Amino acid sequence: MKTFFKAVICGVLLAAMVGSAYAAFAKPEDAIRYRKAVMAVIGHHFGALAAVVKGKTPFDREGVETDARVIQTISLLPWEACLEPGSYSGSTTLKASALTEKERFMDIAEQFERTSQQLLAAASSGDQDAVKARFGEAAQSCKACHSTYRNK
Amino acid sequence: MKTFFKAVICGVLLAAMVGSAYAAFAKPEDAIRYRKAVMAVIGHHFGALAAVVKGKTPFDREGVETDARVIQTISLLPWEACLEPGSYSGSTTLKASALTEKERFMDIAEQFERTSQQLLAAASSGDQDAVKARFGEAAQSCKACHSTYRNK
Repeated sequence: MKTFFKAVICGVLLAAMVGSAYAAFAKPEDAIRYRKAVMAVIGHHFGALAAVVKGKTPFDREGVETDARVIQTISLLPWEACLEPGSYSGSTTLKASALTEKERFMDIAEQFERTSQQLLAAASSGDQDAVKARFGEAAQSCKACHSTYRNK
Repeated sequence: MKTFFKAVICGVLLAAMVGSAYAAFAKPEDAIRYRKAVMAVIGHHFGALAAVVKGKTPFDREGVETDARVIQTISLLPWEACLEPGSYSGSTTLKASALTEKERFMDIAEQFERTSQQLLAAASSGDQDAVKARFGEAAQSCKACHSTYRNK
C-alpha cells in the first residue's frame, strides 16, 4: 500500500473515531492544563515543519510526514477543553469569548482540523511545494484563532 | 470494516510510520517541555480510563476506545525527548539514569507502547474484562518506568 493511501486511510479512520466523546474535566484547571499540553505538542511538531518550510532544516520526507501525522491526530483533541466553563482565568491566555462565541470558535477549530488533514496528505505525497502551500494554510488557521481568542 | 480491524490497521500503520525520526530539540528545556506535555496528555486519557475501570464512570465503548486510541498514538512520542543530553535538571523529575541506562529505559518504554497497543485492541473489541486486564498491564508498565526513572 502506498504511503499516501496509508495516510488517507489512517486519517479518515482517526477522524471517524477520535473527536467525539472525551472525558469531562473534574476542574477548570484540568482543562487548562490539558489544552496547554496538547498545544505544546502541536507547537513542537509545527515548529519542526516550519524549519523545513523555511529551509533551515533539509526536507526529510519521513520526518515531515511524522510531524504532519502527529499534528493531524492531535488537532482533534483540544476543543472540548477550550470550551470548559470557568477555564478563562488563572494560567491561561484563552479568552472567554471562545465559549460565548462557541460556533465561530469551532468554525476556526474545524478549519485547523481540515488544513491539518490536507497538510498530512501533502506530506505523505512527498511533494515539497504542496507541503509548503498546505503548511501556510494550516499556519493561517492557527493565526486566525490566536489573533481572535488568545490574550497577548 | 469492523472497529476492531480498523483499530488494528490504524495501529499498525501508525506504529510503522510514527516513532522514527523526530525533530531534535534546540535546547534541553524544549525536550523537557515537550515530554511533560506528552505525558500530561497521556495522563489525562489514562485517568479517564482509570475511572471507567474502577467503576466511577460508566463503560462507554466509544469513549473508552477514543481514550485508548489517543494513548496508543501518543505512546510513541516522548522517548527521544527523554534521552536528550542535559535535560535532567531544572523543571523535570526524570533521572539522568534514563540516558546512562538507555537500553533498559527503552525496554520499559517499548513495553508501554506494546501494552498501549493491546489496550486499544481490547477497547476496540468492546470486551470490558479485556479492557480491565489490559489497562492493568499498561498501568504496570507506567509504574515500572516511574518507580525506576522518576524522582519523587
